Amino acid sequence: MTIITLTTDFGLQDTYVGTMKGVILSIDPSARIVDLTHQITPQDTLSAVREIASSYRYFPAGTIHVVVVDPGVGGSRDIIALKVDGHTFLAPDNGIAGHVAQLGRCQDLVRIENSALFLKPLSATFHGRDIFAPVAANLSTGYPMEKLGPPVDQHRLILQANSTPEADDQRIDGTIVKVDRFGNLISDIDTQTIEAVAGNHGGANLLVQVRGTVIHGISRIYGDVPHGRPLALVGSSGYLEIAANCGNAEHLIDAHCGDRIAVRLAGTHKPNSSGTK
Amino acid sequence: MTIITLTTDFGLQDTYVGTMKGVILSIDPSARIVDLTHQITPQDTLSAVREIASSYRYFPAGTIHVVVVDPGVGGSRDIIALKVDGHTFLAPDNGIAGHVAQLGRCQDLVRIENSALFLKPLSATFHGRDIFAPVAANLSTGYPMEKLGPPVDQHRLILQANSTPEADDQRIDGTIVKVDRFGNLISDIDTQTIEAVAGNHGGANLLVQVRGTVIHGISRIYGDVPHGRPLALVGSSGYLEIAANCGNAEHLIDAHCGDRIAVRLAGTHKPNSSGTK
Amino acid sequence: MTIITLTTDFGLQDTYVGTMKGVILSIDPSARIVDLTHQITPQDTLSAVREIASSYRYFPAGTIHVVVVDPGVGGSRDIIALKVDGHTFLAPDNGIAGHVAQLGRCQDLVRIENSALFLKPLSATFHGRDIFAPVAANLSTGYPMEKLGPPVDQHRLILQANSTPEADDQRIDGTIVKVDRFGNLISDIDTQTIEAVAGNHGGANLLVQVRGTVIHGISRIYGDVPHGRPLALVGSSGYLEIAANCGNAEHLIDAHCGDRIAVRLAGTHKPNSSGTK
Repeated sequence: MTIITLTTDFGLQDTYVGTMKGVILSIDPSARIVDLTHQITPQDTLSAVREIASSYRYFPAGTIHVVVVDPGVGGSRDIIALKVDGHTFLAPDNGIAGHVAQLGRCQDLVRIENSALFLKPLSATFHGRDIFAPVAANLSTGYPMEKLGPPVDQHRLILQANSTPEADDQRIDGTIVKVDRFGNLISDIDTQTIEAVAGNHGGANLLVQVRGTVIHGISRIYGDVPHGRPLALVGSSGYLEIAANCGNAEHLIDAHCGDRIAVRLAGTHKPNSSGTK
Repeated sequence: MTIITLTTDFGLQDTYVGTMKGVILSIDPSARIVDLTHQITPQDTLSAVREIASSYRYFPAGTIHVVVVDPGVGGSRDIIALKVDGHTFLAPDNGIAGHVAQLGRCQDLVRIENSALFLKPLSATFHGRDIFAPVAANLSTGYPMEKLGPPVDQHRLILQANSTPEADDQRIDGTIVKVDRFGNLISDIDTQTIEAVAGNHGGANLLVQVRGTVIHGISRIYGDVPHGRPLALVGSSGYLEIAANCGNAEHLIDAHCGDRIAVRLAGTHKPNSSGTK
Repeated sequence: MTIITLTTDFGLQDTYVGTMKGVILSIDPSARIVDLTHQITPQDTLSAVREIASSYRYFPAGTIHVVVVDPGVGGSRDIIALKVDGHTFLAPDNGIAGHVAQLGRCQDLVRIENSALFLKPLSATFHGRDIFAPVAANLSTGYPMEKLGPPVDQHRLILQANSTPEADDQRIDGTIVKVDRFGNLISDIDTQTIEAVAGNHGGANLLVQVRGTVIHGISRIYGDVPHGRPLALVGSSGYLEIAANCGNAEHLIDAHCGDRIAVRLAGTHKPNSSGTK
């Protein structure tokens, strides 16, 4: 009984996801299928990478993760199967496969070319149904990965320009890369980068600025500030985020994906405003 | 093979729900996980209570219901496990656990403190993944409830002020507490309260008023009125609701959550308007 | 282990779908339940037909497909069970059952009347929970179809006026019947109709017009045109659609469900504009 997770930009309005599940269960009736998310912004491969990167390790080794954000479907882009730390991934070579390969110890990289496994007729626009689903289901029934196609050199995989924060020992300049359902503004600044600036003060000596709002110190929980007030904390994925206690930081601060977020050592910073809004 | 239901305010845009499922299946690969809803308005604990109250009894006894609407996550609020009529519930002590305990015969109330079951490192902001999921999965594999933590007195659980209708033998004054996908306006007025006013006339002797719209009589089905017209009926959860046949009552009547709904005996009522819109 | 698919207009905001799953699993704990979609526009029975028609054959024979778009719930409309090409369908006789019966070789048509299988008390507004779910679960445990109720003549089933394209050997006039999550504009013009006009030129000799936009030729993949440009292609369900490479055709062309789409032989057509926008 293998777990197969699905991460796509297909949404739930159409039957694309349900159809993929039909194909999978036709081949492996015992597969356990879990939706990670189908609400990736259409064609946003970097968001797909972030979602799978923060989620996959909560599944048992042996899980098959299918990631289909695939604007080049039907064209010359390859589809890759690979293993990272005992998890199997299927993803297009459009940046997703390349970034996934860097998540841990990468093995068994192959290009999926064995058309004997594909649905017929093979559509040119829905490889999620016609290639990803039947290949995942075959793997879950024990089909050997090396028979999917020829091996691929990891260093040939496409990597996309990804935002990474700039930091020295006094400051970090990062980016808001995601806004979740609660309006939490999630940045690309990870715990290690924060600790390198904060030293052994645990964040109390830091100022965090997004747009005109300056937040003093890193909180541990939402309840560290009064209702409706903004705070900075390290979220459950290990990245700095701006939240509002029982509120919505996106609306409160009027910040969005792509906005800059600055972390400064208190005393080294001249805030643009006199405090939080 | 145990059923675990999930009711949260996490939405489906992010991978929060998918990650909880990964944790559950890592511990109990045979668990059957059912999404009740993840679209509770963020932090709206009373809505979570209403949803689980109207749904849980359609699952077999032995089901584990996980309810995570938890604005106080990481703070001093407790997490409670309890049994009601053979169903197990996990919920924060922020009003949800207290109201769930009143749904039927409550047993085996404990405060979840056994951190041996929690994920490590334990985040301060995502106990759905780090506490609720692994505890639910352990219970589904037979872990004994009494080992989760110390017993709790039901009367110590937090209860939130909840709207309840005011009624005498001639009138009921209630509130619209939910608008569903169809635009049906669902009130907090239950069948018993209606019958106490209607007597043995089955609702034909009642007037129902929401905003400027007055509806004569309680219908049995949507088709009792012409297409596009509003009607009042007792919905599938046993509460009075305003609907529109093949239409959307929310838009038709311009009514919303929190609006008052009045039921009067015909003849005792002076309508504000001369009929339905 | 039987697969049961669900296609409804219930949405995912409420617990209607989750409750149906509770009823199914209470009767058949081993059923595999797959959501096809719950986002059918409320009461849009023709959309429900299109979704199930394009999806069901990706499931194994023996699957039970439950389709509940049922504005007449509780009224005099019948609920039908039937088999098509080895798949079982449950649907109201409001156009859905009639169109499903035409999808292939139809057998074993019965009207569902055996109230011994229904939930008690039977609500008048939620037969998804009280009739469809328990009947589907009983069928999946082997309950014989002929015991559900009396046989029905296929030609007595209701059929709804459905848009069909008009075509001769030089032109096709069809309709946009669906817009998917990506903004792809999906028409009611199928491959065979296109080939009858295109002959052996594979679509290169065709012009496709939607609103003011004229597209030259039928593409094979999205990448056949530059980023952001519109194209016409046969989608994964076998119908002509208008898409935009890495873009959203709905927004680009400002077209919507119900808009006309014209296919002409190049040379026989006077375009309204001088090319694509």
